[in-house]
Amino acid sequence: MGTDRQIHLSFSAHLSGHHPAAWRHPSTEDGSDVSIASYRRLARLAESGLFDLFFMADTPALRIENLESWSRYPLFTNVLEPLTCLSALAGATEHIGLGGTSSTSYNEPFNVARQFASLDHISGGRAAWNVVTTANIYASGNFGEIPLPPHAQRYDRAREFVEVVRKFWNTWEDGAFTYDREAGRFYDPDKMHPVIHQGQHFRIRGGLNIERTPQGHPVIIQAGASEAGMDLAAETAEVVFGSSPTLEKAQAYYAGLKSRMAKVGRAPEDLCVLAGMPVVVGESDDEAEDKYQTLQALLHPMVAKQKLGMDLETDLSDLDMDAPIPEDRIPAKANLHTAYFAEIVRMIREEKLTLRQISQRYERGTRTVRGTAKRVADHMEEWFATGAADGFMLILHLQPKGLEDFVRLVVPELQRRGLFRTEYKGRTLRDHLGLRRPPFQPPVSAAARAAE
Amino acid sequence: MGTDRQIHLSFSAHLSGHHPAAWRHPSTEDGSDVSIASYRRLARLAESGLFDLFFMADTPALRIENLESWSRYPLFTNVLEPLTCLSALAGATEHIGLGGTSSTSYNEPFNVARQFASLDHISGGRAAWNVVTTANIYASGNFGEIPLPPHAQRYDRAREFVEVVRKFWNTWEDGAFTYDREAGRFYDPDKMHPVIHQGQHFRIRGGLNIERTPQGHPVIIQAGASEAGMDLAAETAEVVFGSSPTLEKAQAYYAGLKSRMAKVGRAPEDLCVLAGMPVVVGESDDEAEDKYQTLQALLHPMVAKQKLGMDLETDLSDLDMDAPIPEDRIPAKANLHTAYFAEIVRMIREEKLTLRQISQRYERGTRTVRGTAKRVADHMEEWFATGAADGFMLILHLQPKGLEDFVRLVVPELQRRGLFRTEYKGRTLRDHLGLRRPPFQPPVSAAARAAE
Repeated sequence: MGTDRQIHLSFSAHLSGHHPAAWRHPSTEDGSDVSIASYRRLARLAESGLFDLFFMADTPALRIENLESWSRYPLFTNVLEPLTCLSALAGATEHIGLGGTSSTSYNEPFNVARQFASLDHISGGRAAWNVVTTANIYASGNFGEIPLPPHAQRYDRAREFVEVVRKFWNTWEDGAFTYDREAGRFYDPDKMHPVIHQGQHFRIRGGLNIERTPQGHPVIIQAGASEAGMDLAAETAEVVFGSSPTLEKAQAYYAGLKSRMAKVGRAPEDLCVLAGMPVVVGESDDEAEDKYQTLQALLHPMVAKQKLGMDLETDLSDLDMDAPIPEDRIPAKANLHTAYFAEIVRMIREEKLTLRQISQRYERGTRTVRGTAKRVADHMEEWFATGAADGFMLILHLQPKGLEDFVRLVVPELQRRGLFRTEYKGRTLRDHLGLRRPPFQPPVSAAARAAE
Repeated sequence: MGTDRQIHLSFSAHLSGHHPAAWRHPSTEDGSDVSIASYRRLARLAESGLFDLFFMADTPALRIENLESWSRYPLFTNVLEPLTCLSALAGATEHIGLGGTSSTSYNEPFNVARQFASLDHISGGRAAWNVVTTANIYASGNFGEIPLPPHAQRYDRAREFVEVVRKFWNTWEDGAFTYDREAGRFYDPDKMHPVIHQGQHFRIRGGLNIERTPQGHPVIIQAGASEAGMDLAAETAEVVFGSSPTLEKAQAYYAGLKSRMAKVGRAPEDLCVLAGMPVVVGESDDEAEDKYQTLQALLHPMVAKQKLGMDLETDLSDLDMDAPIPEDRIPAKANLHTAYFAEIVRMIREEKLTLRQISQRYERGTRTVRGTAKRVADHMEEWFATGAADGFMLILHLQPKGLEDFVRLVVPELQRRGLFRTEYKGRTLRDHLGLRRPPFQPPVSAAARAAE
């Protein structure tokens, strides 16, 4: 990322889009949540826009209570599983990276290492693993961990899990498989390195049954925002999804992450920060605003009350949408997210808005960028040029429409400014992101080897 | 399977073939073990032969000792992971079933249920899960289970694992997802059934986040040969891979399995027995025999001694290939497989063969059927017509060549006899196998529900 530094683009691939009412919009495909054909069209569309990465967020959970409202709010309720879906998309695309979330709390390191390595081979070097710890009681219930294990324990396990996965990915040196038919030997035993690991959470004596992958190993993604999360990201992540709501906070996050990297001996260009960017593009600013408000108006009152109630930390389900939230329903203080809470309280007390008005205006976290391609590109250029991001993880409210608009309107504007590629130069995700292929590292320390 | 009963065909998809020397044969693709393009060609070839099922055997293991011989014997050493590979193949094929092995010892039921359900959606109803317990110290070492858990414990877990997976697959009734945009409700809460399970190995409180699949649920495959294995297969399997070495034993196995089904209230046609059949086809019997012997001759002496030594239960590595095995090297008795042991001892004592001759002649278990299409079809017809099998799991020594020969020579012969389809009639694997789509079954017993 020198003088010819360019913006990297990813997007989060929910079929109907990220807005909780997107599925009600007439432009979305009916009941398409498990349609591989729709995912295929979406991935090809992103590839036609020269995106770096097609990304599937995920949680292995199903909400089994409060079905009256959850049956109106399709949050990972009926979706394809990322590794199977991404593998299917590998054959339908040629260049775009294929990333997915997999939890360190509810998998085995061998299985994660193997499936992502397999995807990297299948896709010719386009795989990426988003490491998450999963804090969700509905996920833990699917795996017998009732109640949810404490944060520190999940985090300790995640750190060791990544370490073990990286060891598995280094079972074989490059070129270990020689297939020497004459000599009757198909690999060089000196280039195989057993994984011997003795840790707090994992005890391994084995190795991966698949050769080193086209990318050396799949790209590692994280989204750590806490102190511990940033430390882990600085140590091991190659892509980080940022979620800072303002330019200033994003700059501080970016600088903090890159300076932590220096402390562990990594170069700043070994990590690519993609800022989360909710965005609605229009031919005019008004059109973009209209698109956004159309979706907000489609929000079912039960969903609206549930979303607001979550951040105001109280139950609003019995209230009238067209009346103000009564003063006596406001808790004395926030227990979870102070900033979200304060913003809603301000709207109630100072702006004196009705519940419906608040619901239509309130946004959790980063505010949606809405406007023309020029306005959107200005925003991106500012963040990119002032040390807030190396690229963006687009949160598109509506799909495929929102992605079509972005590819048709914003991509050419970024290209005109010299900020985005006009063709794919390489074949692997690392090529697109400008990340080096990691050299082979023996998976076991000298001490462990000596103790054998 | 009434009067128009026909043979079902599957094959085990190792890229270079099942013979341990296949990869040395000039017809195999060089270093193709992780080549999705080669798997794709193989799957399309099988589909052109109207096969019911493309099947990937698997073990999550890597042998990390005795590398001098294992580097010559490519047993699952460098292979794609089945679920990712099968998902990639779904887009490259239209009709053929896609089955893979996944272990109940080293996975979580939620993940297995979800990935196979996802594959069933991606493939339009062509997924099958082969349930195995995995008895392999190199697998257990990859998952921290050192030493291997005892057989009974693995088996108990397998039984409960399948029960839980089936419950997950029944989280949603057919038609639960209505996507009613007008009402703002995308599923019918009455058609969602939480999985509440309290067992010896698993405690679940959740559900699957993917709708009921095209096949109702993926086809369940097992290969149980022990008493406990046959009981479990009779209770839950829809396809069984048999491995009886003779017609008489296969008939007894077949009858035993189907009579056990009656005891648990299942109809015999709800389970399809595919007999394992190692086969080499030629234009003439001599050509087939030549093909087989060519591969036997390519067996590296270290691999030959390792294979024989395994069944003679002694180390033969220092012996001369062209001398007889000395009498004092024969153990007093077998500890593992008496029949295999006795056969080798007979060759040493009665036939007085050299080590090389024994190696070329000895076959473990079922003897390879080798000959013309007529000879092979005669064998298959006999087994099929006399209650030994509903179809066959082909073990092809060489791939893709062996599969090409079978499709070109044997398939038309079976069709001529009216024993095999001339076109695909349905779209799902269940359609091909003549298995009914299982009706929805609530995943939780009334007792458990009452206790909530």
